[in-house]
Amino acid sequence: MKTVNIGLIGFGNIGTGVVRALAANGDLAGERTGAQLRLVRIADVDTRRRRDADYDPAILTADAHAVTDDPAVDIVIELIGGLEPARSLVERALRAGKHVVTANKAMLATFGPDLLATAARHGVALLFEASVGGGIPIIRALQTGLSANRIRRVFGIVNGTCNYILTSMAERGKTFDAVLAEAQAHGYAEPDPTYDIEGYDTAHKTAILAQLAFGQDIRFADVHVEGITKIAPVDIEYARELGYTIKLLGIAKHDPADGRAEVRVHPTLLPRSSLLASVGGVFNAVMVEGDLVGKTMFYGRGAGQDPTASAVLSDVMSIAADLARDAKPGAENRLRVEGGRKALKPIAELEAAYYLRIPVLDRAGVMARLSGALGAREVSINSMIQKADHPAGRAEVIIVTHTTRESAVQQALAEIAAMDTTVGEPFVLRVEDEL
Amino acid sequence: MKTVNIGLIGFGNIGTGVVRALAANGDLAGERTGAQLRLVRIADVDTRRRRDADYDPAILTADAHAVTDDPAVDIVIELIGGLEPARSLVERALRAGKHVVTANKAMLATFGPDLLATAARHGVALLFEASVGGGIPIIRALQTGLSANRIRRVFGIVNGTCNYILTSMAERGKTFDAVLAEAQAHGYAEPDPTYDIEGYDTAHKTAILAQLAFGQDIRFADVHVEGITKIAPVDIEYARELGYTIKLLGIAKHDPADGRAEVRVHPTLLPRSSLLASVGGVFNAVMVEGDLVGKTMFYGRGAGQDPTASAVLSDVMSIAADLARDAKPGAENRLRVEGGRKALKPIAELEAAYYLRIPVLDRAGVMARLSGALGAREVSINSMIQKADHPAGRAEVIIVTHTTRESAVQQALAEIAAMDTTVGEPFVLRVEDEL
Repeated sequence: MKTVNIGLIGFGNIGTGVVRALAANGDLAGERTGAQLRLVRIADVDTRRRRDADYDPAILTADAHAVTDDPAVDIVIELIGGLEPARSLVERALRAGKHVVTANKAMLATFGPDLLATAARHGVALLFEASVGGGIPIIRALQTGLSANRIRRVFGIVNGTCNYILTSMAERGKTFDAVLAEAQAHGYAEPDPTYDIEGYDTAHKTAILAQLAFGQDIRFADVHVEGITKIAPVDIEYARELGYTIKLLGIAKHDPADGRAEVRVHPTLLPRSSLLASVGGVFNAVMVEGDLVGKTMFYGRGAGQDPTASAVLSDVMSIAADLARDAKPGAENRLRVEGGRKALKPIAELEAAYYLRIPVLDRAGVMARLSGALGAREVSINSMIQKADHPAGRAEVIIVTHTTRESAVQQALAEIAAMDTTVGEPFVLRVEDEL
Repeated sequence: MKTVNIGLIGFGNIGTGVVRALAANGDLAGERTGAQLRLVRIADVDTRRRRDADYDPAILTADAHAVTDDPAVDIVIELIGGLEPARSLVERALRAGKHVVTANKAMLATFGPDLLATAARHGVALLFEASVGGGIPIIRALQTGLSANRIRRVFGIVNGTCNYILTSMAERGKTFDAVLAEAQAHGYAEPDPTYDIEGYDTAHKTAILAQLAFGQDIRFADVHVEGITKIAPVDIEYARELGYTIKLLGIAKHDPADGRAEVRVHPTLLPRSSLLASVGGVFNAVMVEGDLVGKTMFYGRGAGQDPTASAVLSDVMSIAADLARDAKPGAENRLRVEGGRKALKPIAELEAAYYLRIPVLDRAGVMARLSGALGAREVSINSMIQKADHPAGRAEVIIVTHTTRESAVQQALAEIAAMDTTVGEPFVLRVEDEL
């Protein structure tokens, strides 16, 4: 039986999960791949803390180059996260002819196409199933199982923290701040939650999905991002009345007519009857629509030690099995990001339906002024509710538009915000009806 | 650019879909794989009917061996279905060193482990993504993306005809026969629907999923099968009252404690709040639970020309891309059915919850007799409803049990059926609560 040597960089929570999974399912991995997986080196800045996993302390080092440069290492697992030194280490490992498995969404959303090109040049595999959707094999689905399709649309609920917060707000009518505090207490949200709640994590993952879906060089900086911090319990309530649920969605669409892709992350109203609307709590789901396959959905735990280890170890096994049968690893990388960089559709040109919540004076003629401002930009109204039960002669007007252009809505909202009958900042969300 | 030659056996509905997909997305396949896909031969018993696809009539032959034996053919696509001559042709192609892509679930459920062994011996790939779940990449998920897991349980809604019938019965309160007739009129059910409605199709697919999930030699003949023909509108109604939906499920479980797998297909009550319960109409979904990943679900169109072509063409592209990069195709087959044959758990030893519908005389003491018969076998009752609004002093008693042993329920039902207060055949369904 062939031995495949593994080096691990990053021995935190996920790294510990991988070492535990190797110990627990290493025999299974051996049977299935025909290769014995041997963990030969671990690098982490913290060499002193004892981790809750079965490993030989002698293989732990503070020097990451001891992993990337070790001629005995066949596969490097990178789990330190962030841009640097992760990128330099991965690049160094690839140049040294090592296969790399990573869960690093920030790195891939920023340097993915470059790193894939480096891997291809050096004839090695760069696998990253764990970077999006935890244990859900969505990366491979795009790389292999759905490869015959022109992918039209991808919708992802890919951040468990945001989905937990929005699900809890909906179920218990609490405010964002209250639920966030609870989530932090339960460990579902970080002490500094910015990366999750402002949508950056979802944007990293959506950039990776869009790269693979459209075969284009699409990066984090290309993604329009809005987080969930401004959503009020009333928005969730009004959305429900109108037949919708609010989710933080990563959205990537490709318009075959104009040849441009749009990639955006924002809280979105989606029909309550849609399958994505039933994805609750910390679960993740990605819907992929292709020209042949139609709508597909992939669902599961999007984070956590074990689900992430499932993805990392499956990637390692994929490489190890090829090494064991003397084949070239990296079949998953055949579907390259070949399309290069192309202009994306700017958010101002977006065509969507919109949810507007406008705090106004509860006074005759206000509705006419609002519809006038919208009508002047040819924004047509699908439904309109006035909620008068507010203090001091105030009301809220909730409008859902038909499909219209983003720039027209923004112009109308600027006019509405300046009206003397408008008594607070208008709030706007986008709607996706075809789910 | 390398050219990869394809031979197709079986030019019916799905074959036509594949030829159309090759014409529509062949350029995309070329970009993504680095190989030009060329359809060089088609065999079908009917060489005269003109198909709605772009192909050269000169390559159409009635002789399937002209495909399997053509030295120019790299990949054989088998789409004739059924056991013979499909099996002989696939075996002949594999022995001739050709890679094979097939959608043939009956063949794989019957001879799959033998054919995979033949493929391995001859160093070629045998891919079959289209055999289960149409375009949903569930086969690859088990072969690669989830390979690090010990799979505990698989639940599949994998027959669109049955799911359409059950969904329509639930939505419109109609009888099985009425909905079947409608489904036949719409083309959702075959003129002879036996293969679908008796559960055989689901059993074929479940055997394939169980093979891959547990790495064991499990075949169609090992699967306990019951169809949906006996379900009455009242069962769907009572199930709903009790918080359940009825679906035809393929179920495969592996019990790590006793080391045995159970594989069965039958109409099943599942919680209405579960994600699988929301899978309506002709859609398919497979839930896979692994020790690391937890619960995952894969959803999409399980049949039809385009979704099936998506799976077939993705398999072809996988092989073609490896041929183009001078790698050995068949990475997906690394996860072999190595476990060999092992004893499965007989249905009599099954532990499950049960739904019982018992037509009785509406008379004092009947409930006590029923509970007595169940209690004597230690079958404990979770909930019990009596529905008295039936003609001529009759009633129906509906019982949901706690988890108990199948044999105990069957013995109790035999006693109940023989009671003079029982006025018709008791009807029994199994319940799956942990979904």
